[in-house]
Amino acid sequence: MKKGNTLFFKTRPRIRSYAAICGSKEREGVIGEYADITLSDDMYGESTYEKAECKMLSNAISLAVEKGALTDGDIDVMLSGDLLNQIISASFAARDFQFPFLGLYSACSTMSESMLLAAALIGGGFARNCVAATGSHFASAERQYRYPLELGCTRPPQSQWTVTGAGACVISADVGDIAILNATLGRVRDWGVSDVNNMGAAMAPAAADTLIRHFKDTGEQPSDFDMIVTGDLGALGSRILKDLMWEKGYDISPNHVDCGEMIYKVIEDEFQGGSGAGCSAVVMNSYIFTKMSAGLYKRVLFAATGALLSTVSSGQGESIPCISHAVELLSLSNGNGAAP
Amino acid sequence: MKKGNTLFFKTRPRIRSYAAICGSKEREGVIGEYADITLSDDMYGESTYEKAECKMLSNAISLAVEKGALTDGDIDVMLSGDLLNQIISASFAARDFQFPFLGLYSACSTMSESMLLAAALIGGGFARNCVAATGSHFASAERQYRYPLELGCTRPPQSQWTVTGAGACVISADVGDIAILNATLGRVRDWGVSDVNNMGAAMAPAAADTLIRHFKDTGEQPSDFDMIVTGDLGALGSRILKDLMWEKGYDISPNHVDCGEMIYKVIEDEFQGGSGAGCSAVVMNSYIFTKMSAGLYKRVLFAATGALLSTVSSGQGESIPCISHAVELLSLSNGNGAAP
Repeated sequence: MKKGNTLFFKTRPRIRSYAAICGSKEREGVIGEYADITLSDDMYGESTYEKAECKMLSNAISLAVEKGALTDGDIDVMLSGDLLNQIISASFAARDFQFPFLGLYSACSTMSESMLLAAALIGGGFARNCVAATGSHFASAERQYRYPLELGCTRPPQSQWTVTGAGACVISADVGDIAILNATLGRVRDWGVSDVNNMGAAMAPAAADTLIRHFKDTGEQPSDFDMIVTGDLGALGSRILKDLMWEKGYDISPNHVDCGEMIYKVIEDEFQGGSGAGCSAVVMNSYIFTKMSAGLYKRVLFAATGALLSTVSSGQGESIPCISHAVELLSLSNGNGAAP
Repeated sequence: MKKGNTLFFKTRPRIRSYAAICGSKEREGVIGEYADITLSDDMYGESTYEKAECKMLSNAISLAVEKGALTDGDIDVMLSGDLLNQIISASFAARDFQFPFLGLYSACSTMSESMLLAAALIGGGFARNCVAATGSHFASAERQYRYPLELGCTRPPQSQWTVTGAGACVISADVGDIAILNATLGRVRDWGVSDVNNMGAAMAPAAADTLIRHFKDTGEQPSDFDMIVTGDLGALGSRILKDLMWEKGYDISPNHVDCGEMIYKVIEDEFQGGSGAGCSAVVMNSYIFTKMSAGLYKRVLFAATGALLSTVSSGQGESIPCISHAVELLSLSNGNGAAP
């Protein structure tokens, strides 16, 4: 059930249901019509950005549970984390529910970490229905990691834009038309990048490390997949990843997509695309799972990437350690393109 | 393999080895002679408190792996988190190793969360050797959560003292003389306590909730245990827990101990004892596991508690949501009191 760093789930846990909520900037892109709720005001009726972020996460979870025709009592555990200090969005969202909570932190790779652990709990027979969820908010991330919005700081060209949004899915033992076949555990990689505005460059080596180990452990090739989805490398980071993979003999360019690249209508001169834990959470739990449910994408490898820095570590001169957890998904839909 | 919120590990994963490092104040207490390394200078030769905290964690992990007669290549995954923003101690410690890393955040209940997940991965057949580890540092916690030390703020009588220390254990499929029988998942409980200096009162309801669900799920009674160990409720929080349990028909007073109460020589007029993720990590991975290995304690229920607040959530007027994950341990030693 394990080879190298890859866990194989013989019982094939399923994505039973999923939901995504995104902000006003995000709804203008490709995912706008696939998200369950799109906000016109990113405050979401709350008094602070942080409370708005928590509300998105909590509502995405409620929606996913409801869409799976389940009630709170059916959920064995919720696995979640987010970018805010002490993952308050996840912890406070968990307060809204009666089911247990396992708090995670893996920066922007939280979506794949939570899916991996949920699949392992189900595969091991310890759970039947788990919630995997995460989210982020542009304004709360700017305030915490960068500068107050009111300062109006300019953004360097290599920077990305934290996604306002949350995504959640219910992973179940036997119901659902997308199966989780296996998952590859991430290792911390740090190639010495210390530019906090260039997360794509920092994270690309972690993604390459995980993808290569995945291919070695499973015996698969990039061409076996309809899509190899990274989380939020952005345009520059995606180019670096493709180069790194090419050097090791893997050509992922025909079928690689990056959630950060696809979530906005990116003009690369302007910036590199989306980032944040909510980036891949929203794209996976709206556009990609919808297409997989319809059988339009059959086999998808999802490798979200996280930059494990803090303002303190960077202030103390540290470089940026990064990680990427990968999850392999297979559509069980008949592939006629009709929504099941 | 699951009943209620409790996971039952039929294969009985084992604590193969363990290690603890603690600071100068901690070594004066009961655990001083049981810790592997005790510091005379809490900077541990580093230039910042945060780097000292990370070094303790990294070295505790190395020591635990070494004491288990293993090398890094034998470890399937490390499960860890800590109190610092973006769990930088755990993430940067993970950078020191080649094995995979799953980042967790559960405040001061990280030790039991990491043990629970490690046991589930092993029980599910997805791993053979996992590291579960966490730590904290008084000075980095004060700086991040409270005031600069240089201000010399007075501490209110209900406050606790963040432990400087780290603990790690290797949990293995079949080697070791302490077995993990089962584990109960925590739920977020929030009874409206908003005093950030009174974590014990905030966390006691979460501990009570988990212990009661544990007893119901397993059919066990408090008297079945040699010890019911909470993480860092402190003196006041422990009294509240015992009262809450008594109200529900469970008398834990004969065999309840709290790592926060036992780590220092507490004079209650002064303060309530230790706290921090390192508190239960150090006590479990030194004193308690040593006594269990020697067969002096046979059956132990370990329920660490975490307060899932942040400075931002408290600043925005929120109360303190709390959680407690519990792990049931059984000594397989022959009980003659000799170290195996």
